[in-house]
Amino acid sequence: MAKAIGYAARAADKPLSYFEFERREPKADDVEIEIAYCGVCHSDLHQARDEWGGTVFPCLPGHEIVGTVTRVGNDVTKYKVGDKVGVGCMVDSCGTCISCEQGHEQYCENGFVATYNGEDKHLGGATYGGYSNRVVVREDFVLKIADDQDLAAVSPLLCAGITTYSPLHHWGVTKGHKVGVVGLGGLGHMAVKIAKAMGAEVVLFTTSPGKVDDAKRLGADHVVISKDEDQMKAWRNRLDFILNTVAAPHDLDAYMELLRLDGTMTLVGVPASPHPSPSVANLIFKRRSLAGSLIGGIRETQDMLDFCAKHNITSDIEMIDIDEINDAYERMLKSDVKYRFVIDMKSLKQQ
Amino acid sequence: MAKAIGYAARAADKPLSYFEFERREPKADDVEIEIAYCGVCHSDLHQARDEWGGTVFPCLPGHEIVGTVTRVGNDVTKYKVGDKVGVGCMVDSCGTCISCEQGHEQYCENGFVATYNGEDKHLGGATYGGYSNRVVVREDFVLKIADDQDLAAVSPLLCAGITTYSPLHHWGVTKGHKVGVVGLGGLGHMAVKIAKAMGAEVVLFTTSPGKVDDAKRLGADHVVISKDEDQMKAWRNRLDFILNTVAAPHDLDAYMELLRLDGTMTLVGVPASPHPSPSVANLIFKRRSLAGSLIGGIRETQDMLDFCAKHNITSDIEMIDIDEINDAYERMLKSDVKYRFVIDMKSLKQQ
Repeated sequence: MAKAIGYAARAADKPLSYFEFERREPKADDVEIEIAYCGVCHSDLHQARDEWGGTVFPCLPGHEIVGTVTRVGNDVTKYKVGDKVGVGCMVDSCGTCISCEQGHEQYCENGFVATYNGEDKHLGGATYGGYSNRVVVREDFVLKIADDQDLAAVSPLLCAGITTYSPLHHWGVTKGHKVGVVGLGGLGHMAVKIAKAMGAEVVLFTTSPGKVDDAKRLGADHVVISKDEDQMKAWRNRLDFILNTVAAPHDLDAYMELLRLDGTMTLVGVPASPHPSPSVANLIFKRRSLAGSLIGGIRETQDMLDFCAKHNITSDIEMIDIDEINDAYERMLKSDVKYRFVIDMKSLKQQ
Repeated sequence: MAKAIGYAARAADKPLSYFEFERREPKADDVEIEIAYCGVCHSDLHQARDEWGGTVFPCLPGHEIVGTVTRVGNDVTKYKVGDKVGVGCMVDSCGTCISCEQGHEQYCENGFVATYNGEDKHLGGATYGGYSNRVVVREDFVLKIADDQDLAAVSPLLCAGITTYSPLHHWGVTKGHKVGVVGLGGLGHMAVKIAKAMGAEVVLFTTSPGKVDDAKRLGADHVVISKDEDQMKAWRNRLDFILNTVAAPHDLDAYMELLRLDGTMTLVGVPASPHPSPSVANLIFKRRSLAGSLIGGIRETQDMLDFCAKHNITSDIEMIDIDEINDAYERMLKSDVKYRFVIDMKSLKQQ
């Protein structure tokens, strides 16, 4: 057992604070990683505050992990000490169900092991995430990161990047497509960059006139203020695909109407209360689909990292020290971040 | 102009009754058809009673038309006098939009011309449907029917058949698939037969224990009483595709949960009031889709007729005389028909 340190919530109503714990010694197929940076995802806040229920405390969040390999088990073949690597939302899965066999570990029939608040099969209790100095992960769930990339700005790709890349890729977004992205937050800003790099004409939908310039800077070809009915009407029946990153309950039909024949709108956020029921006529009269998508598989995550490296895509980030995490959560609740907080793990010191 | 007779509603609250009117003389690309039989679709009732709004009176319904060619225009090449033919829900479309060019006339960007209550571009006013002795239709919207088929039992294929065949075909139902069909009415009983002929293992969902034997006779491999939670649970995550033929508002999630990874449930009925809003988590955690589908294109309708002829598929029908149509509507409202009323047009006489 190896000592580790990090920041954890002791209860749903308590701030995150310094925490000492143990990681397992690397087993034969394990990789030990010294964490350099960890992105801050909205899920971290939900879990730490037990807003989904089921949080095991202490809760140590973080699933946008990047760092350097420090030790490898005897059977590890893909990584060596010194490699730059990443870990996303999953650290294990059954490996035997049809989803795992097809490389869709995120849809593991037996439930994947989440990077934090998952079931730790080695030490018991809950898994601890990336707000920490080190982590030990099965080789198969470790991702390779190109040496020449800005590690800190890469970290959000491990969740925000793959959550948007996977549906864009699965629904075949390519050159010539008109693609809508709803919402310009951590997920939306990655979706704009990735869809653009895939060759699509990107239409960003936002409620905030203040985000127009930034959306264009990020690569959107068009920015539509979604409260403006005339602007919305101008896009009716024109989009091939819409990636909707907004989890707050809202009128889905306002976007479904913008899809052309056989178009799909895919949701990646689960609302706390239901969206208004979408119109069936809107589905039937253009054979449209409303779908959902969850992060991405491991092989697909590696493809995404390679794609982003090739196209020079990283996240727009704001770096924080780990003792600023509770303030960062408050700012995240006000959408006051462009577009992802990343913890600089050099700020985490033994106390 | 040629005299025609039929049964029409003079107002939303009036029964259908004998009606004399005129059809156009066949133009160069027209086919004139002596109608032998016309199926009775629930849409006929909705339109005649103006339940969707927009009904033009007199309203003469009927879009499951079969009969014999009596005259053809000079440019007609596909049909000759004496041919057995059919006409479905459409009699024309713009022919120039992308949907029409791709053979999806049902999704015509400029709106197809419905067989009844459409805009009659030749005579003005509304088009008149198949509860009539004859009809004149553009060659391109006429379907060929095999000589050796039971014409009366073929007529419901023109709407109920294509409305179910099209989504089953579009979503690639084939041997090895497990396919759910929700509801055993006019559409559902066709869906069971067609999905079975496509090679699928068919699971029929019904609220009525009294329909179990009949569903099996029609070809269902399994029948699930949808009110029985244990029976429903046994199918969780197992179906590749679900065709939902029920238009009454109901809990879609009870069925969405039965879809496996990447499964789709397609709705073909528009509810009068919304279904409860479907769970987004149900979409996201298995990358499922909720979709809609509208009848089918002309080429696809011909494919469906050929497929049904090859597999000896027709509708289960109950033949009525045309003066029984108002009673038939009342029985249809009580689902008291197995599974489609068909009007024998020999019963329509000049008065």
